Formats: sequence, C-alpha cells, structure tokens
Amino acid sequence: MILVLNAGSSSLRCALFRPGACEPAWHAHVADIGRQPRITVDGIASDGERPPAGDHATVARRLFERLPAAPSAAGHRVVHGGTRHAAPVRLDADVMLALEGLVPLAPAHQPQALACIRAVGETWPDLPQVACFDTAFHRTQARLAQLYPLPRALIDEGLVRFGFHGLSYAHLARAYPSGRILAAHLGHGASLCAIRDGRSVATTMGFTTLDGLMMGTRSGAVDPGLVLYLIRERGLSPDAVADLLNARSGLLGVSGISDDVQVLEASDAVAAREALDLFTYRIVREAGSLIAALGGVDTIVFTGGIGEHAAQVRTDVCRALAFAGVVLDEGANAGGAGRIEASGSAVAVRVAPANEAREIALSVSDVLGPM
Amino acid sequence: MILVLNAGSSSLRCALFRPGACEPAWHAHVADIGRQPRITVDGIASDGERPPAGDHATVARRLFERLPAAPSAAGHRVVHGGTRHAAPVRLDADVMLALEGLVPLAPAHQPQALACIRAVGETWPDLPQVACFDTAFHRTQARLAQLYPLPRALIDEGLVRFGFHGLSYAHLARAYPSGRILAAHLGHGASLCAIRDGRSVATTMGFTTLDGLMMGTRSGAVDPGLVLYLIRERGLSPDAVADLLNARSGLLGVSGISDDVQVLEASDAVAAREALDLFTYRIVREAGSLIAALGGVDTIVFTGGIGEHAAQVRTDVCRALAFAGVVLDEGANAGGAGRIEASGSAVAVRVAPANEAREIALSVSDVLGPM
Repeated sequence: MILVLNAGSSSLRCALFRPGACEPAWHAHVADIGRQPRITVDGIASDGERPPAGDHATVARRLFERLPAAPSAAGHRVVHGGTRHAAPVRLDADVMLALEGLVPLAPAHQPQALACIRAVGETWPDLPQVACFDTAFHRTQARLAQLYPLPRALIDEGLVRFGFHGLSYAHLARAYPSGRILAAHLGHGASLCAIRDGRSVATTMGFTTLDGLMMGTRSGAVDPGLVLYLIRERGLSPDAVADLLNARSGLLGVSGISDDVQVLEASDAVAAREALDLFTYRIVREAGSLIAALGGVDTIVFTGGIGEHAAQVRTDVCRALAFAGVVLDEGANAGGAGRIEASGSAVAVRVAPANEAREIALSVSDVLGPM
Repeated sequence: MILVLNAGSSSLRCALFRPGACEPAWHAHVADIGRQPRITVDGIASDGERPPAGDHATVARRLFERLPAAPSAAGHRVVHGGTRHAAPVRLDADVMLALEGLVPLAPAHQPQALACIRAVGETWPDLPQVACFDTAFHRTQARLAQLYPLPRALIDEGLVRFGFHGLSYAHLARAYPSGRILAAHLGHGASLCAIRDGRSVATTMGFTTLDGLMMGTRSGAVDPGLVLYLIRERGLSPDAVADLLNARSGLLGVSGISDDVQVLEASDAVAAREALDLFTYRIVREAGSLIAALGGVDTIVFTGGIGEHAAQVRTDVCRALAFAGVVLDEGANAGGAGRIEASGSAVAVRVAPANEAREIALSVSDVLGPM
C-alpha cells in the first residue's frame, strides 16, 4: 500500500492506495489544523470524535495510528521543487535540505509538507518516501516561457515562472498524452496550462501562486506598478498589500459577498454577477494567450471544483473561444457529461476530475519501481 | 496655426500645424531638459547654439520666442486623464485642478505637461487650449476590460486599468475605422491595443505604464507576488524595486547590453538574442490574449519606432500568429512596405508611422471646431 499525504496550509489529506488503483482503499481529511480541527474518514465526518490537536506533524502521527494497513512507501505533495526538480524524487537528507531552502518561496505550504515527511520518517524509519512537486511538471517548458523580463542576475538566481498545480496537470497529461491541450484547473486556486504532447508549454501561475487568473480570494495578475503605488503612494505596508491581494481580492473582493462560485451564482446582486463575469473574462484572456503559445488548440479540459461543477463558467468560456473553433454541446455540458463538445466542434472539450492523490501514488510507483 | 506640445519626462516636442495638415509647418525638439539640453529645429540639430536652460516651462517659453507664426490654439499631450476624461477636453481652471490631482498616478510626466499648459497661458492669455490624454481612448472599453480583481472599494476609488498610448491608437483608429484591429505600438514604451470598429476593446498597459509587454527598460507584467517577495524576503526598498522594474529590466535587463533593438540585433551575444526572443514571445502571448478579447482579428497594425523599423520582430510575431490566419509577405516586410500581408492571408498586416502630434492637432480642431 502506498501512503499519500497532501498537506495544505491548515489541512491534511491522507490516503492509502493499492499500486495502480484509481481510488484510495482508505482516506482521511483533517481541516482547520491549529484552530478547530475537524476529521473526516472515508468521507464520513467524525463529529463526536475528539479531534487531533497540534500541528501538522502531530495530526499526521495521530492519523498513522488509524491506518488499516501498513504502508510500503509514502508519497507527498510538496508545493515547491524550485528550478532543480523536473520530476518526482526519492527523498533523502540532501533533498530535504534543498527543500528547506525553498521555504521562503512557499512559506504557507512548504513547511507543513516537510513536517509530514519527517513524521513519516520517525514513524517508519526505513519507509521509502517520494516528493511530488507542484512545480515540477512545468520545468520542461522552453526557457522563454519560464522567464520574466528582469535583470539577468535575478533570472540566474531563480526568479522565474515556476508554475503550480503541476500534479493536477501531470495527471491530465496521462489521459491526454498527445496534441495541443488547454487545461483549466479551476478551484479556490485557479490556473491554466498549455500542454503539447504531454509536456507543459506555458502556464498562468508564475513565481508565486498569485499570478495569472482571478481566483477565490486572490487577484491573480495585476500591474506591478499598482503594487508599488499601494505601498509608495497609499502608505500600505507590504504585508497589508500581500493580505489584500491574496485574501481579500478575486471573487470575494469584486463581489463583496463570497469567494464561492455557487454562492455567487445563487445571488441576484449585480456585484456577484460582475465578479463571475470578470472571473470568466480573465480565463478567456489567458486562454487566448496560451492558445497563442500552443499555436492553436485541439482539446480543452476543465478540472478542479469549479471546472468540474460550474457548467455556466464552462459555457461562458467556450462561447468566447468560438473564434478558436470551440463549439459546446450545451445539453451535455449542463448534464454533467465528461465529453461536452458539439459534434461539429473543431476543438474537443472535456471535464475531468482532479485527482492529485492518484497522481502521487502513480509517481511513487514510477520513482520506486515495482514493490 | 495650431501649436502642439508633447512634454516627456525630460524632453519637449513643439510643432505648428496648419488645420488638417499631415505634417507640421515647423517643429522643434529639446532633449535632456534639466541636464545637458540639446535642441533640434525642423530636424536640424543646433550644435553651436547655447541650449535653453531650466525646467520645461522655461524651455517652452524660449521655444515660443522662435515660432515662425502666432498660434490660434494649442493642444497638449497629457498622459493621464483619469477615469473622467474619455475624449480630449478644452482646458479651464476646473479641468486643470482635476489634472493636478492625477499627478500621483503619473509623477514622471503629468507635472511637465501641466507646466507647459501654464506657460502657454502666461504667454497668450486668451489662446484656447486643449488637453489630449493618453488614457482617454481606452475609456470606451467595456467595464470588465478595465477592472483588476481587487476589493470593490479600491475599484470604486479608481484603481483600474487606464491604458496608455491612446493618442497613437486613436490616430490608427482614424485610418482603420472598422473591423477587429490588433494595434502594436512598439517603441521604448510598448503596448498592444484591441480595437473594434474604431473603439478600444482592451489594452496591455494598465494602472501604470509598467504593465503588459516587455519594453526597453521596463519589465512589463510580472507576478505581483514577485514584487512583494523582493521587498519582504530580499529586503529591497519599494523605490529600489520601482527602479529595478522600470529602468533596469526589459531588453536592457535580459540582455545586459542595451535597451535598443537595433543594437541587440547587431550583437552576436546569446543574451542579446534571448532578450529579443523574449520581447517577441511576450508580444505573441499578449496578442493571443487580445485576439480572444476581439473574438478573432482582421488586421494587425505595427507602429512606433520598433514597430515601424524592426522587420525581424514583425516576422517573428506574425509567424507565431499563423494559427490566427496571419501570413506575411516576407519580401514586402523586409522592404519596408506599408502593406505586408501575403495575398492569401486571412489577416491584413500593415505598418503605419506613429503620429501623435497630428492626432493632437486634429483633436484640437475636433474640440474647438472651425477656427
């Protein structure tokens, strides 16, 4: 059995996969770690249960006590692999040291993942462990797609477009190994990725997860001059601007109501509609940019919570991309089908569930070989 | 005769136009104001002449003494018209007060233009004066195209995409009044504008002139998270980051050699080639984004110093846009023709000189009527 751990900033997902299996044999989720943790096992909330207290490592060790079987390997989602890691890697002391050095690039996520890796190592000292990076899938991009037009010294120091959501895109690339794919991972975080013949060509997130599309509470791309204006002319602190752009912008900021697409779709407030329209508009603009990077598009794939469930968002995006040959089957789209292009469409349009946990399990097998 | 003044941060262009004329009857240019000013009259450098000293107002008054004829009206390029001005406007005390209030949005350009307006008023107290804004042409955009996904209170305060180079684009729109136009103003500053039936639909510059394309010394769009990282993790001051992104990035930063396309094209350094390739790549990506905003493209127009003279940049951009139906006539392009699409191209491709001075003169006539 492969143990899969996915540590968020205040959450931990834990699953056991038999090698090659599509679904986990067992899985658990702990939310609100450090505040009022809530635990869910195999999809069932344990309301009456005394929740595990403490940090990610403590919570992880409590979960390990409940595993129905001992693992033979572990795989971890690690947000940042820097410029060095273009693929999942077996963890050792050297790799861990390098990953510690990347904490400043992902301070809200990297420490939690490293704490979970150490917790596994303390519980099962000889268990082989693999790190799977959100950035790795994008390292095969041409150099131009990874560069910001900065002074060369800063580029050489690694101030480049890393890109994220790589486990989600890598999993889609297994299902769509050829052609020009525009993949849209639309969740609370959201990005697009241009994939050609299974490899990332370009993506909308950049040096951080703030770049690119409008998101639930993140602004996505804004004029760097606006960031400097808020600090220099308005007197906001850099921390306040970071909070503004990461936690108070996006769907929440524009609507003033919620960061949740479902809530906004149910609202009749003008601002709710405007937030949704701007969300779609930003996807269309960035889609055009990535279609140019691909030189055209053969298939569009929607994934992530919004990508899988918000039929209206898919409709609005696809209508605006008619110029690229996209024609949606509105009935199939509304009905929740996986294949939603009209029969005459030059571009295939698909909906696929995000499955980062399975991608991690498959990566562990790829790295360690048959166990 | 219409007096046309175009004040840059350290330069002043002054011209006299007969109403409706294509070329000025007289023109002068003073560079390096405040340092070692150099004056050129009717295209001839006055090397032996004692240059006018002092600030923009002083330099302007010295130029007024040399005018071959008295003006009957004056038109000024004013960078910023804020959210209020969607067209050129006759200047009065109220308008001037409002334009003073916009200085924090364009501190390196707005004060110089306002100083020139006051110098004209002191010299010819009854002369009608018109302000022509770089931002005005973009005010007809749909609201979604002008919004950043920020908290609504900041949007309402005017933190929006203003867009710039509007005089250049307005002049192109006179020549191309219908269809879907992708206009590329590529000079030391560079932007793209999507124009439909003579009106701006979207543009790459935003709240400031730093957003969008890679430029001579400006980075263009970079992850706002990278700006915050440089300040919070690297300890750079906001002023240092502003200098870095405005004056030490772009072609100069990536090449480490020059901000001048001609110099880079003549270089055999790998970094020079990479800077040019990234410049082109960024144009292609943003072009795709604007083509999506237009829902396809009928005509591409190149203007500005690089747009008019860098045939290789046009070739590289158009080849990458083949997916949108663009086919270049390589011979016509290399030969400096105005019409450079191949006969079978679905998209027209044109080269047009930028003529902001004439646009200002025409705008003066539009606002004041027959004189």
